Amino acid sequence: MNSELVTRVRAARPIIHSITNYVTANDCANILLACGASPIMSDDPAEAEDIASLAAAVVLNLGTLSDRKLDAMLTAGKTANSLCRPVVLDPVGAGASRRRTEAAKTLLSRVKFSAVRGNVSEIRALSGELSPSGGVDAVEADLRTGDLPHAALARRFSEAYGTVTVLSGQTDIVTDGKRTALLHNGDVMMSRVTGTGCELTSLVAAFLAAGDDAFDGALTAAAVMGLSGEIAARRLTPADGSGTYRAYIIDAVYNMTPETLENGARYEIIT
Amino acid sequence: MNSELVTRVRAARPIIHSITNYVTANDCANILLACGASPIMSDDPAEAEDIASLAAAVVLNLGTLSDRKLDAMLTAGKTANSLCRPVVLDPVGAGASRRRTEAAKTLLSRVKFSAVRGNVSEIRALSGELSPSGGVDAVEADLRTGDLPHAALARRFSEAYGTVTVLSGQTDIVTDGKRTALLHNGDVMMSRVTGTGCELTSLVAAFLAAGDDAFDGALTAAAVMGLSGEIAARRLTPADGSGTYRAYIIDAVYNMTPETLENGARYEIIT
Amino acid sequence: MNSELVTRVRAARPIIHSITNYVTANDCANILLACGASPIMSDDPAEAEDIASLAAAVVLNLGTLSDRKLDAMLTAGKTANSLCRPVVLDPVGAGASRRRTEAAKTLLSRVKFSAVRGNVSEIRALSGELSPSGGVDAVEADLRTGDLPHAALARRFSEAYGTVTVLSGQTDIVTDGKRTALLHNGDVMMSRVTGTGCELTSLVAAFLAAGDDAFDGALTAAAVMGLSGEIAARRLTPADGSGTYRAYIIDAVYNMTPETLENGARYEIIT
Repeated sequence: MNSELVTRVRAARPIIHSITNYVTANDCANILLACGASPIMSDDPAEAEDIASLAAAVVLNLGTLSDRKLDAMLTAGKTANSLCRPVVLDPVGAGASRRRTEAAKTLLSRVKFSAVRGNVSEIRALSGELSPSGGVDAVEADLRTGDLPHAALARRFSEAYGTVTVLSGQTDIVTDGKRTALLHNGDVMMSRVTGTGCELTSLVAAFLAAGDDAFDGALTAAAVMGLSGEIAARRLTPADGSGTYRAYIIDAVYNMTPETLENGARYEIIT
Repeated sequence: MNSELVTRVRAARPIIHSITNYVTANDCANILLACGASPIMSDDPAEAEDIASLAAAVVLNLGTLSDRKLDAMLTAGKTANSLCRPVVLDPVGAGASRRRTEAAKTLLSRVKFSAVRGNVSEIRALSGELSPSGGVDAVEADLRTGDLPHAALARRFSEAYGTVTVLSGQTDIVTDGKRTALLHNGDVMMSRVTGTGCELTSLVAAFLAAGDDAFDGALTAAAVMGLSGEIAARRLTPADGSGTYRAYIIDAVYNMTPETLENGARYEIIT
Repeated sequence: MNSELVTRVRAARPIIHSITNYVTANDCANILLACGASPIMSDDPAEAEDIASLAAAVVLNLGTLSDRKLDAMLTAGKTANSLCRPVVLDPVGAGASRRRTEAAKTLLSRVKFSAVRGNVSEIRALSGELSPSGGVDAVEADLRTGDLPHAALARRFSEAYGTVTVLSGQTDIVTDGKRTALLHNGDVMMSRVTGTGCELTSLVAAFLAAGDDAFDGALTAAAVMGLSGEIAARRLTPADGSGTYRAYIIDAVYNMTPETLENGARYEIIT
């Protein structure tokens, strides 16, 4: 982790081109602003190249997908690839429909991603054929319990696609296939607010844009998000719930400092 | 009303497939999470069948309508019908344009709805030709004053379409054509926040997914929403307004218990 | 400025047809409700004429643009023009892509706008060929420093298009080409929340719908927005950030009175 990235994002104000879903687009824009980045949300194929060319990083999020958005994603992803700028994938709902699974696979085959962030179902759905032991059963076995099988899944995914993987769960796994971190920050209430996964994906893009090492950037972003979820939870009164919590998460990102992050991050590098 | 449904939704965590508008999609996802349900927002015709097949209930909301969404709605609605799972319609803006009125009528003719939730203008717009006295005037007469004419309108709507009707207003009417309840919960400030109607529609779907009786489920959902609006209003300080109120409504749903609901619900069964 | 417009908007409850982006549509709907207006968000070309005909004013906002939305904008704009009702443009992202710049120019050439609200980059991008000295350099020179060059840019824009221009920045400029005001309300934190520009555009439409003088209406709306940003900032505790601030801005609009506005507005008419 590199807590100084918190400061660097604010100094660099990286433009993040986000092609994302309309359910959490507002949260994603606000968390990008809160961390010091500058969001441009656009899903129009007719401007995907122009906007991606302006951006320091690109986020492709498969929520509320359409053919039109998928076109824009391919163009934006390839544009950023040609400019050697980070592209981050959030395969929302991969595995929930053939359409989403296939769209994610299309993107993975045609765009080079610096990082992919998803939950275990999504990463598993995109890993089926990648299992070294050649079958779904092996992958299923991986998922039976706990962090280490998840870490193995994430590592294989990273190796297969040459990307950093951020596998969100009770413990977040961050790996580039060689280095692997288990991150213990976060609060169970984060799963009761829509968009916390999408928001983390946005932060990953901002932190990758501001640093040189994708593993470090992704781990730092995940620590910022998880710690912000904890800080937000501690502020809640008995009458508060997920509505207030949603705003407090963004508040905590807004107020995050390298010191707070250094003191609050709880992770271990396991490989 | 069945206050135990509050607990049952949390236990069942029903997946709610929502094809909805982008203005309030975030609120709808968050209120579904707050009540214990699990939202999937997707409006893509290419995955409507897959997603609807996963879902315990489907919500079709006509806000920010497009041809593409309407296609997805027809597919999702028919899929849920074939699986005998509840489908709930929110005919947002019916009557405001011919396009919305016709789209709502198309859906009503091709999908079987367990519940329809709208305001008096919307239900009226979809009831024109159903008036027993054969004209718009009769319906207009119904609307002149108060709860009983609204209840008659809702009852006729329920009879015509074989659905539970939730007619939102100062008094909410819930009816299945036979049983009719007047619900007196709610706060006038709810009309100053966008999406409180859409949010109720989402809650209706969650409560229908968790119970057996659509009338009871819809009445319970309406009581939860109205009471949450009251609880939220009581928390406001003089500096607070509709921005804070919006979050507090979701907080109240998040904290709702069967006891709170039992003590706070104010309704009467009139038939 | 006309602080009585605050009361008039609440009395008239003007319907505002908004064709807008999905990132900030919820904020725009909520700020319209907060000021007393009644939003209808619809971007469907098939109902653009019907909805625009119902509306007291129309907002066209270019965020998350699509061909489909642009079609709806042209229809809604022309409909409102034919009914002599105000149309307000927010050229979000003009200059950031050729697509947005061209879309904004198309709208400016085919729809008569009562007001255009944008930041200096957007207004500049739409003013390139309008510079009296005939080149980009002259415009660049305008932008080098401070309020007076911005005011000159805005004034030329107003003259070219026969519209009120609201140029948002540290100082907001409001001009109809003849009268020009510098508005000193606002808080730097407004730039850390997505949608504050879009929200101001929405308020401009509401205030234009409720009054007779577009310059006065736009100036009043800008004062309401800037002062609300200040009031919201004063409420923040150290743990609060941009998440809470977002809601407090809407709270402040909700609670705005003519007296508060009269006491808090800080502007000067410079021509």
